[in-house]
Amino acid sequence: MEKISNKVINRLTQYHSILVASIKKGETTVTSSYMAQLLKIDDSQVRKDVSMLNNTGKSRVGYDALELKETIEKTLGFSNPKNAFIIGAGNLGTALAKYNDFEDYGLRVLALFDIDKNKIGKSINSKPVYDINELSRYTKEKNVEIAILTVPADFAQSIADFAVKSKIKYIWNFSPAVLSVPVGIDVWNENLMGNFLQFSYKISK
Amino acid sequence: MEKISNKVINRLTQYHSILVASIKKGETTVTSSYMAQLLKIDDSQVRKDVSMLNNTGKSRVGYDALELKETIEKTLGFSNPKNAFIIGAGNLGTALAKYNDFEDYGLRVLALFDIDKNKIGKSINSKPVYDINELSRYTKEKNVEIAILTVPADFAQSIADFAVKSKIKYIWNFSPAVLSVPVGIDVWNENLMGNFLQFSYKISK
Repeated sequence: MEKISNKVINRLTQYHSILVASIKKGETTVTSSYMAQLLKIDDSQVRKDVSMLNNTGKSRVGYDALELKETIEKTLGFSNPKNAFIIGAGNLGTALAKYNDFEDYGLRVLALFDIDKNKIGKSINSKPVYDINELSRYTKEKNVEIAILTVPADFAQSIADFAVKSKIKYIWNFSPAVLSVPVGIDVWNENLMGNFLQFSYKISK
Repeated sequence: MEKISNKVINRLTQYHSILVASIKKGETTVTSSYMAQLLKIDDSQVRKDVSMLNNTGKSRVGYDALELKETIEKTLGFSNPKNAFIIGAGNLGTALAKYNDFEDYGLRVLALFDIDKNKIGKSINSKPVYDINELSRYTKEKNVEIAILTVPADFAQSIADFAVKSKIKYIWNFSPAVLSVPVGIDVWNENLMGNFLQFSYKISK
């Protein structure tokens, strides 16, 4: 299959959310027009996206919900889970550690790291909070390459440097700071304010 | 000026982050190549984006940092703040309530709403936590049209219905649920898993 664009990946995850909700309600089929209507996109867009997948369960009454759900999971690699650490056990780090959906989507948070002695040694949603100074040891021991960075902007660069030294290769950056990292390290900026401003700009016109 | 695309808005907020950090370090000018390198994009892209703005402070040594920062703020409407409520005073709602950067970017969170009696009456980062049943009254009283939804997926639809009944017009949805809303109501899905999967898909190829 050809490489999937970011926009299509985002839509596939939203079809997946709808399918999960429909299956929970006991429905066995879901139509493209139902999904299109919820996402306020065109029916033909949904059909085009699904036709790209190796999905066969289409009938006159719609897609087989369970099969399409599994096809999306296979396409996006949910079944090939990745281990990650959360750096920063503040409110955002805690929220993400409690976000059990991550595991369904192939992201397994093994532990959190912090500098706060009051947090170290405790656990959040059954995940231990370790001293940040132990990061290098655990990265090696647990073979973890992904760090989810939820520290304040002012510390983000120095913690990112430290994570890179500790052999982290991929950083999902939730801090509102642009990070400078060496070649070979990938950063994915969550950029919440950027997302909000897209929305804000749209609604103020 | 022509309508700005989502991609450009996202890049402008990232230039803005870099400018803020540079100004803090005492720098007065910032070059396009410096910003391009941090964001791993092309130099010409930065110059093209900036040329779209009504910005004049460009010299041989780079952009005037303070002026470009203010131009971006003016372009994206930071100086025209919008009031919002957070619905759900859990970890994610708390993290967002403590996120003081929102205000710098023109988003003013006035209060949080929850159903938990242990949270109602307290305050988070000087913002009061009100009973969700008071939403309609405060929406009217404070003239608030934006709700930031941070409730669990299972409650998201019913809370969204309630928010719409309470005259909320714009929902920034952090819950991993696709919401069904009436015509005239705008939903902006944060879709954290979709964002992660773009990243995850990219790094697994």
